Order: sequence, then C-alpha cells, then structure tokens
Amino acid sequence: MKVSELGEFGLIDLLAEMVSRAQSKSAAAYRKLVIGIGDDAAAWKGAPGTLLATTDSLFQDEHFRLSTTPWYELGWKALAVNLSDIAAMGGVPEYALVSLGLPSDTGVDDVKALYQGMLDLAGRFEVAIVGGDTCRASLVSITVTVLGSAAGRDGRMLTRSAARPGDKIAVTGTLGAAAAGMQMLEKKLQLDEESSRQLRKAFLQPEPRVAEGQQLVALGVKAGIDISDGLISDLKHVCEASRVGARVEVDRIPIAPVVKARFSDRALALAATGGEDYELLFTASEDVIGRAKAALSCPVTIIGEVVAEGPGNVALVDAQGGVVELGKSGWEHFVA
Amino acid sequence: MKVSELGEFGLIDLLAEMVSRAQSKSAAAYRKLVIGIGDDAAAWKGAPGTLLATTDSLFQDEHFRLSTTPWYELGWKALAVNLSDIAAMGGVPEYALVSLGLPSDTGVDDVKALYQGMLDLAGRFEVAIVGGDTCRASLVSITVTVLGSAAGRDGRMLTRSAARPGDKIAVTGTLGAAAAGMQMLEKKLQLDEESSRQLRKAFLQPEPRVAEGQQLVALGVKAGIDISDGLISDLKHVCEASRVGARVEVDRIPIAPVVKARFSDRALALAATGGEDYELLFTASEDVIGRAKAALSCPVTIIGEVVAEGPGNVALVDAQGGVVELGKSGWEHFVA
Repeated sequence: MKVSELGEFGLIDLLAEMVSRAQSKSAAAYRKLVIGIGDDAAAWKGAPGTLLATTDSLFQDEHFRLSTTPWYELGWKALAVNLSDIAAMGGVPEYALVSLGLPSDTGVDDVKALYQGMLDLAGRFEVAIVGGDTCRASLVSITVTVLGSAAGRDGRMLTRSAARPGDKIAVTGTLGAAAAGMQMLEKKLQLDEESSRQLRKAFLQPEPRVAEGQQLVALGVKAGIDISDGLISDLKHVCEASRVGARVEVDRIPIAPVVKARFSDRALALAATGGEDYELLFTASEDVIGRAKAALSCPVTIIGEVVAEGPGNVALVDAQGGVVELGKSGWEHFVA
Repeated sequence: MKVSELGEFGLIDLLAEMVSRAQSKSAAAYRKLVIGIGDDAAAWKGAPGTLLATTDSLFQDEHFRLSTTPWYELGWKALAVNLSDIAAMGGVPEYALVSLGLPSDTGVDDVKALYQGMLDLAGRFEVAIVGGDTCRASLVSITVTVLGSAAGRDGRMLTRSAARPGDKIAVTGTLGAAAAGMQMLEKKLQLDEESSRQLRKAFLQPEPRVAEGQQLVALGVKAGIDISDGLISDLKHVCEASRVGARVEVDRIPIAPVVKARFSDRALALAATGGEDYELLFTASEDVIGRAKAALSCPVTIIGEVVAEGPGNVALVDAQGGVVELGKSGWEHFVA
C-alpha cells in the first residue's frame, strides 16, 4: 500500500500506534510525558537543570540514496546523528520529534521500516518519540529534533569553546569506516563479507557515543564535538570556537582496521576527512584522558595537542614533527 | 551571491550573526540561554513546569511556491505555523530551531530575508532562535521546531481530548481569508488593492493566537486546537480525540468580510474547509465563552455545540436544524 492510499491522518495514526506499542512505558522520559503524538504539541514535566535541543535533517540524494540505504537504516541514522549531537554535549537524550517529507508513492511498509529503525535506536537510550509532522514532498527528507538535558552536576557540558592550550586532543573509537562504507555502496565495491558488513554498518547504522559523552563530563572533560563533517573539519570548529590552534600527529589517528586493510592508500584520508563516524573528539589534560581510557569501554586515542598559536588552525605533522598536508579538510555542503 | 559561493559554514556564521544582532537579550528566553547557535546543541536553564514541543515543515511546491511566496513571508509563516501549535496548547513559546534545505543557487539575500521574516515574528513573542541545520537540497524546505512551556498553573493546557458533551464550540477571529488568499495568488485573481492586501497577509503572514491561547487557559478553557487543516477537519480531530460528536450551525461560521464580499458563492466553503487561518477553535461552557468574548481582543464566535452522539462526527446544520453538506471536509496531504 502507498501512503497516498492511506492518507496523511491514516499514516499518522499507524505511526502513533507503532510508537506507542514499541516504547518502554517505564523509561524516565515516558514517565514524565503528559501528551505524546496526537495533539498540537507534545508535553512533558520539566525539571530544574540545563536543557539541550538539536535538530538535523537528512535529504534524499544529498545525504542518502534510496538505492543504497534501506529504510530501516535510514530511520536509525536520522535519529543517530541527532543523538550524537546530544552525546557531543555529554547530555542525556530524552525526547524526539520527527518531521517526514514523503513522495505519495512511498510504500507504507517502507515508512514502517523507517520508524522501526528509529524506534530500535530510541529504545536503546530510552528516548521517547513524542511528535512530528508528515507531509507530501517530491523527495524523501527526515528532520529529527532531539531534546535532552545536561548530565553533569551544575549543568556541566562538553562545548566546542572550552579547549585550552596545553590540552591533549583525543578521539573515541576508530575512524574512516563510515566514509569507506559510503564509497563501497556508491561505487559498488566488492569486498569480503565481513569487511562489507562492518563498513555498511559504520555508514548506515552509526552508534552514537551517548554513554561515553556522559562519562567524559563526569571525568571533568569540558571540550568536545562529534565527528560528523570529518576529524580535521570538526577539530577546526573546536579551534575556531575556542580561539586556539591544534597540532595533529597524523600517524596517531586511529584508522579503523578494516579501512587500513581494504583502502590502504586512501585509509588516512578517509579517517582524517571522511566524516560521519559519529565518534567524539575531545580535549583535556593528559591525566584526564588517561582516566577516560580506563573508564570508557571503547578505544580512546590521543592524536595531538591544543596550542595557543594560529587560532582556528589545524596543523598536521608527522612523527618527526614535519608538516604534512591532506587533500581537503572535510566537506562543506554548499561548496561546489 | 549564491549560498554555494558562501559555503555552508559561511552561511551559518552569517545567520548566527543576524540572529544575535536581532534578538532582544532582555527577553526571558535569552536570559535563560546558556548556548545558542554554534555548538552541537543549544542549551538553556530549565525550570519545573510543563514543557511543550512541536515541529512543522513547509515544503516547496507542496506548501508554498517561490513564484507567489516572498522569502520574508516564507520565514514568517514557517515560524508562525509552529507558534500556532503552541498557541493551540495555550502555551508560551520560548525557543526555536530551524532546519533549512536549500538549492545551491539560492541567493544569500533570499536566505537573509527568510531569516528576517522569522526574526520579526520571533521578536513579537520574545522567542529565541537557538539553533538549526542548513543543508543543500533540490527544493526549498523549512522545518521549524518550537519549544515552550505551559502557561497555566499546574501545567493546565488546551488539549484536543478535553471536549465534553454540552460544551459550546467557538472560534477566534474570522475564517476563509487564508484559503482565499492562496486562491488569489495561485489563480492570479485581480482584486482591489485593499482586498488583495488583506488576503495576501492572511495567507502569507498569519498571526498566531499566542496571547489568546494563554488567556483561554486562564479562563478555564480545556479543549482547543488551531485551524490549520480547515475548521471542519480540525473540529473532527477534536471530536475523535475527545470521543464526542459536534453540531455546527454553518450560518454562524464567522466568514472574513473580505471573503464574503469577493468570493460570495465560495465564501462558506473557504471558511469551513479552506484551512491555514491559524485561528483557535475551542470548546467550553457558554458562560466561559462569554468571558472569553469580553477578555480577548479578537472576535470570539460560538458556532455550535459538542454532543455525545456520533463520536468523531461533525454534523453541519442550517439555522432551522436541517442537515447541510459541504463538498469536502478539509484536505489531507496524501489523498490523491
């Protein structure tokens, strides 16, 4: 059945029922919920503390192609990129609103798969989907807004503007697999099954570092961002906001093993500039980062340091301190 | 200059500066703001009470055409439809997040005009624009999310589910001008200057009934919705959510004078099913509605009553109680 046959209100009813059935009523966000899907706005009981809000859209043929992105993964990713923004503040995600643009001939089962992907990820972090909007559009688009709260005492958060000279720069996990996964799907590269599975998952079903962001705040980390545009590009955002420079030893960048193995000559570029890994980049003293290495369940790797010189600049050096260059420093959507 | 020449980050910087310059730092929402545009998420100080959240998108060629909608009005309307959802809860809008999809060849001045339209409306209600997302897309789309709080003591709100048999049904303002305005623009109807001005404004720059929604809650009104899909269609939403029926005397529907004068034969249909007027429809005792008439600065008109029979049904009757029919009960986006 197509969404045009079901009608807008029929589709909303179906999705509301799906959400209501799937979501855990015992989750904290649900217990505070007063009105979910179905009224003019969602409503929940607030509390003192610092609130967080972020919104991010995925547009067909810009951020994804329907030929390479199954609907379930599309839903997962649309929520994941927003949860990652909350993770990048060290916050607790609580509520999500979903605005869909859908061509009339979209299959109802496809929309259900999209919602299932969102619900499965939402369930992991006890995020309640509480509202949204569904409209006809010529291409598919999904805009998700996530509301949450700061996990830290006294509203402590990770911000882009808190990096200080002398801080070391660290990243969680490994990098490059999402960009390699996109290349694999776009260029129809034939890889062995296990590599293919890993790259596909990295690109289509990223795992936002929600717990890790909260742990970093608890350990006293103040500066952080998630790696969406690309390591160098996102580090540049931190440098600009903090009015500091950065020195990155490219040999220390933790390239995902599967990328190193299968994309040898391009592996470093994919890890440094590919983007969409949704790992966290943060800065702190070597001591604090040492404690993060011990506390977090994922790898934590120091890749360089914050410097006072060259505010807004990211210098790339080799192990001997010699300056190196990478082709591009991530991608900007509007640059031709 | 085109947005492709400025680049995504250049555009974000420009819009952030525009927002920062335009917005009143003394507004309550700004005083509670911890982090605005420029980090991974916006952050502000929360308080006990009931929070509200709503999101709505406008898509090019579905909700507007660039040939008939100037960018300033597009920005105004994209925010207005969301403020209207908060008004329909009787709430106080506080923060807005804006996600834009823009073709690469969009003029930077056009995007500035769009933001100016949003900022001018935001300024009236002291709403702070605190974040968003800007992406390349093949057609223009704007998704706005508005966060607010319930104005009423003890989290009292207007909801769709609180209508009770015996309540009278009332609407604020007059109806039909927005739909008539759309017809005028789409069909290039030539009307006198003053009619044209009124219809254009009704369609392109609706005034959300934010103050009125709050006044209704204060007066003890419990059930309400804003008229976006159309009077009959939105009343049906209330009936379904409240499991009640409704009887509307069509002769009582307050048709906008300009619509009555210029669209004589279609005036009632435009007022009853046209939609996009963003007036409030509410139900309450005749006594409470009488007090609303005295308190609100806009017209308040009783158009019918809530009945126990026929849950979810809206019956249209003439002054003699005879059943009448209208062509269609509003529009659903996906119905062919």
